[in-house]
Amino acid sequence: MSAKNILYAQSGGVTATINASACGLIEAARRNRARVGRVYAARNGILGALGEDLVDTSAEPAAAIRALMHTPGGAFGSCRCDLPPLPQGRAHFERLAAVFRAHDIGYFFYNGGNGSAETAHQIATILPRLGQPVISVAVPKTIDNDIVGSDCSPGFGSVAKFAATSLREAMADLASMSHSSTKVFVMEVMGRYTGWIAAACGMALPAGKDGPLLLLAPEVRFSRRQFIAAVRTCVEKHGWCAVAVAEGIRLPDGRRLTQAGGDGIPGHEQLGGVAPLIAAMVRGALGLKVHWSVLDYVQRAARHLASRTDLEQAYAVGQAALTYALQGRTGVMPVIQRIDDRPYRWRIVPAPLKGIMNREKRLPRGFLTADGYRLTARARRYFAPLILGEAPQPYRDGLPLHASLRLKPVARRLQSGWQMPA
Amino acid sequence: MSAKNILYAQSGGVTATINASACGLIEAARRNRARVGRVYAARNGILGALGEDLVDTSAEPAAAIRALMHTPGGAFGSCRCDLPPLPQGRAHFERLAAVFRAHDIGYFFYNGGNGSAETAHQIATILPRLGQPVISVAVPKTIDNDIVGSDCSPGFGSVAKFAATSLREAMADLASMSHSSTKVFVMEVMGRYTGWIAAACGMALPAGKDGPLLLLAPEVRFSRRQFIAAVRTCVEKHGWCAVAVAEGIRLPDGRRLTQAGGDGIPGHEQLGGVAPLIAAMVRGALGLKVHWSVLDYVQRAARHLASRTDLEQAYAVGQAALTYALQGRTGVMPVIQRIDDRPYRWRIVPAPLKGIMNREKRLPRGFLTADGYRLTARARRYFAPLILGEAPQPYRDGLPLHASLRLKPVARRLQSGWQMPA
Repeated sequence: MSAKNILYAQSGGVTATINASACGLIEAARRNRARVGRVYAARNGILGALGEDLVDTSAEPAAAIRALMHTPGGAFGSCRCDLPPLPQGRAHFERLAAVFRAHDIGYFFYNGGNGSAETAHQIATILPRLGQPVISVAVPKTIDNDIVGSDCSPGFGSVAKFAATSLREAMADLASMSHSSTKVFVMEVMGRYTGWIAAACGMALPAGKDGPLLLLAPEVRFSRRQFIAAVRTCVEKHGWCAVAVAEGIRLPDGRRLTQAGGDGIPGHEQLGGVAPLIAAMVRGALGLKVHWSVLDYVQRAARHLASRTDLEQAYAVGQAALTYALQGRTGVMPVIQRIDDRPYRWRIVPAPLKGIMNREKRLPRGFLTADGYRLTARARRYFAPLILGEAPQPYRDGLPLHASLRLKPVARRLQSGWQMPA
Repeated sequence: MSAKNILYAQSGGVTATINASACGLIEAARRNRARVGRVYAARNGILGALGEDLVDTSAEPAAAIRALMHTPGGAFGSCRCDLPPLPQGRAHFERLAAVFRAHDIGYFFYNGGNGSAETAHQIATILPRLGQPVISVAVPKTIDNDIVGSDCSPGFGSVAKFAATSLREAMADLASMSHSSTKVFVMEVMGRYTGWIAAACGMALPAGKDGPLLLLAPEVRFSRRQFIAAVRTCVEKHGWCAVAVAEGIRLPDGRRLTQAGGDGIPGHEQLGGVAPLIAAMVRGALGLKVHWSVLDYVQRAARHLASRTDLEQAYAVGQAALTYALQGRTGVMPVIQRIDDRPYRWRIVPAPLKGIMNREKRLPRGFLTADGYRLTARARRYFAPLILGEAPQPYRDGLPLHASLRLKPVARRLQSGWQMPA
């Protein structure tokens, strides 16, 4: 019996370092040629697996695979797509079993977050029952840092480093303009449900400084009155005020600020963006000049300022995923355990997907001060190592050089095309 | 007669490299101790000169001055403030003459853009007539790249490099999500009147590629119909479309899109931000999922990704300003002349402020294709050297380390405080 092939796929919102996990997995597979066959990658996540839209990574030279270490985005394409549970999802799983059988796939790796962990779990449990044995391992990735059971999530450290850096730089700008012009700067970061990134922005201030920066996380209900009072106090004390706000902050009634439309200006919900709402609120209430920024994709794609810690962990989880698979472990995810804070030490351990999938790790309330606006010492201890270290990348003609993959298609072996059931 | 003192001040919107000009000037002055006295800096631009709010840079150790090379924002504070012309401005100029006299200021350096060039010119021409001889030199700085008579403006190359890098990274993200999720990404950059930064974003695409990126500059009137058609064509051809838009783009009737409120949704003018308007427009017309980003201060403060070319030029204009002053040249600005494109060679020459001040260099129409959406080869030749080279900076605990100045106040010598005339 020849060694089984691997199928790797990327899922959900991508990160600056998800491709480092692909690199870790593929390089580990290449070191284990005797035990595994080819590494195929599905185009656009599970959709490519369903559609038999596969590429053969064996066609990529070693340098191209290495270049994944400094390439943001998802090199093989991603998707936002959950598989329906049984019995409705039966056709999907039968199709996957057929594709896996046709291409002799014995190992499946799904690189994603909480939702993708469920997909990996479904494949681990359902495909064998359909007569297609497969080892299925989830590889963690999300800028949201909300994977349960992992001290942090690969992808988070880099976005935290970029956001905190950008805020520190913008605060230097604001400080110099504040005497007679702009007094407030609002920076919106991602985080629909959790405030991990917004809180990490608190690192922009040196430790122990009760400085001119307010944090707004979805875990703390937003009070307009208290916030405006805090901005006023901050500007009176420091001359200016910076605000880091998560996109998903909520009013006391539980609605998102973006849904509520801030000051009740109609139509804003369709535009998205909580920073302009906060800016308008401050301008209206305090009459101050306000600048605002929405980082969006720029933050999660900022490989040029990746955290060295994050890059190493992203690589390591890809590598560990293969190790676990070769040990016969299925339905697991390599997660990161923190052994020590200072000096920072960590290790990777396997965790069952059942305890991870569809759960969400929220920012502990103890990470923010009682008023919700500032970092506690406990939070600083947590964030400090995650943003540590730089990970320089090559430039060509002044701009980042990214991997250029051949993406050689794998010849289709199934007769009929796949139509997603309605 | 002892050597005269220097007064240096920063003006207008700050940049990632304005402090490099301060460093160039101060280091040059320290090398010429026999010919010049102390280097004072006014707090918050010309307002600090009027208010006799000065700091003595002699108190800063050499390492702190050197650290200005990697410190964004304006280390001495800036302002947005023009001096009124004579005769209304008489009290201002008499006050400046008194401050200069009290502190034995013989040289004034104003680090700013087109407006600040006029202030420097006023001081060069009016103060001597008021019995206070002074050499006044403007030091160029603006991310807008709109200084007439200079091939480029210090500060621009760095914002161009950061914006093009961020867009290239975000495009990698978008490409991986586009199969079944986000199809369009809109990134808003600065540029109220000119499209230099938006155009530089075109460098995110490799040369010769008719790729999935549309540029929107204020110099080309925005047609909603043509733009939507271009996005549709781009998505059909490439599967996705990125858009770089300058904040100041205008409708055919001359109004800014932000003033017109895009789709006529009321209240948007007060929120600012053209990216959400463009995003809503695309979503409404084409029904595609759109993400958008507004870089704002983040772009112009991004010292962590400064252009080496820009940093060298920013330093060089500060240094040249002192050289010109010591040669007795007044009412001039050191400007950058391009000698050659490949390899890039440049030099600094003095230009009279009279031909520079209050004028504005717009993006040449020949930099964009006929439809206005793409870069021409001529534009690429222009932008290529300006974003070239990296300028690494020190990090501490994972975040950029910035200069920490003592900002030692200069003892006031004038009896009465200054009140800005109503």
